[in-house]
Amino acid sequence: MGRTSDARERILDSSRRLMRARGYTALGIADICTDAGVKKGSFYHFFDSKQALTVEAVDGQWAQERRALEAALAEAAGGPLGRLRALVECLLGTQRTDHSESGVIHGCLYGNLALELSGQEPQVRRRLSEVFDEQVGMVARLIGEAQEAGLIGSTAAADALARSTVAQIEGMVLLARVRNDPALLDEVWPGAARLLGVT
Amino acid sequence: MGRTSDARERILDSSRRLMRARGYTALGIADICTDAGVKKGSFYHFFDSKQALTVEAVDGQWAQERRALEAALAEAAGGPLGRLRALVECLLGTQRTDHSESGVIHGCLYGNLALELSGQEPQVRRRLSEVFDEQVGMVARLIGEAQEAGLIGSTAAADALARSTVAQIEGMVLLARVRNDPALLDEVWPGAARLLGVT
Repeated sequence: MGRTSDARERILDSSRRLMRARGYTALGIADICTDAGVKKGSFYHFFDSKQALTVEAVDGQWAQERRALEAALAEAAGGPLGRLRALVECLLGTQRTDHSESGVIHGCLYGNLALELSGQEPQVRRRLSEVFDEQVGMVARLIGEAQEAGLIGSTAAADALARSTVAQIEGMVLLARVRNDPALLDEVWPGAARLLGVT
Repeated sequence: MGRTSDARERILDSSRRLMRARGYTALGIADICTDAGVKKGSFYHFFDSKQALTVEAVDGQWAQERRALEAALAEAAGGPLGRLRALVECLLGTQRTDHSESGVIHGCLYGNLALELSGQEPQVRRRLSEVFDEQVGMVARLIGEAQEAGLIGSTAAADALARSTVAQIEGMVLLARVRNDPALLDEVWPGAARLLGVT
């Protein structure tokens, strides 16, 4: 039983890593099975399709990231703005790790899938939309706290500011990926601070 | 000869449209030929590979968009900020047209390719990087003019502000695509204005 649940986790781990690097369509189930060291029959024992796997892969990745974000928020000093900055840096962490470990910025799993997938994988798209909504929600709560504490100049609605902040992260990761230049990641927080009117 | 050059243009047009909607990997040369109404043999008469076609498709699209941007800048009223806003709205125009014509936001050809393609298509990646550099350059020149005219509060370097602006566009188009919600496109200019400190 331990072995079986191992195989399932290995498939999910491999799919997340390979999908971020190679994209959804280019990645075959056979590639995932080879990387995970499981037989193709096992794949279909656990997942109905690549789409079903991808929904679970996204869910698992987000559950793990949300825990990491919550831990980063609990530890962060500096009030709501310190927590907001910790959250932004935590969201960028994978890109920095990629680059230092492999020399390549692979981008964000959610962003990559969002721009690759067409209308043919509606379940994945719906799940990605929910993940982005949750990210925006986390950012919006911190922006709201910072506004109440008078730490932010902008009086625009917290959720609009939060969408701009998440857009700033996703857009800059896109530019960093296309140039494979991690220095661009350092521009995210200053950009976010500007659009929030951090005083 | 007219007929031959027609076929080449039809292949390029089809590839741009289909690639933006379906992605790079999912799109076969046969699909492109069918859409363009040309034989597969003709494809290889004009292009060595899908990668070579894509470089030309990106080049052609950017040449066309740059002309549209320059025309929009020439017509825009309201000084450097009016021109900057016209440029941002022109970059978003395709998404609005997509949605009103087909009900679907397909995203930006350059952004979609940037997040889908791995290191296997280095020529496409290099060309995308150059297109984004040119976009950033156009935005930076207008920001520089607006700074000189005292229309922008931020004293940060114009090229860093321009990268943040382009990131804001690409990131918000990503969120608009995943939610298929054109209302998010209306948030780009207010976001850009905030990060520039438009007074």
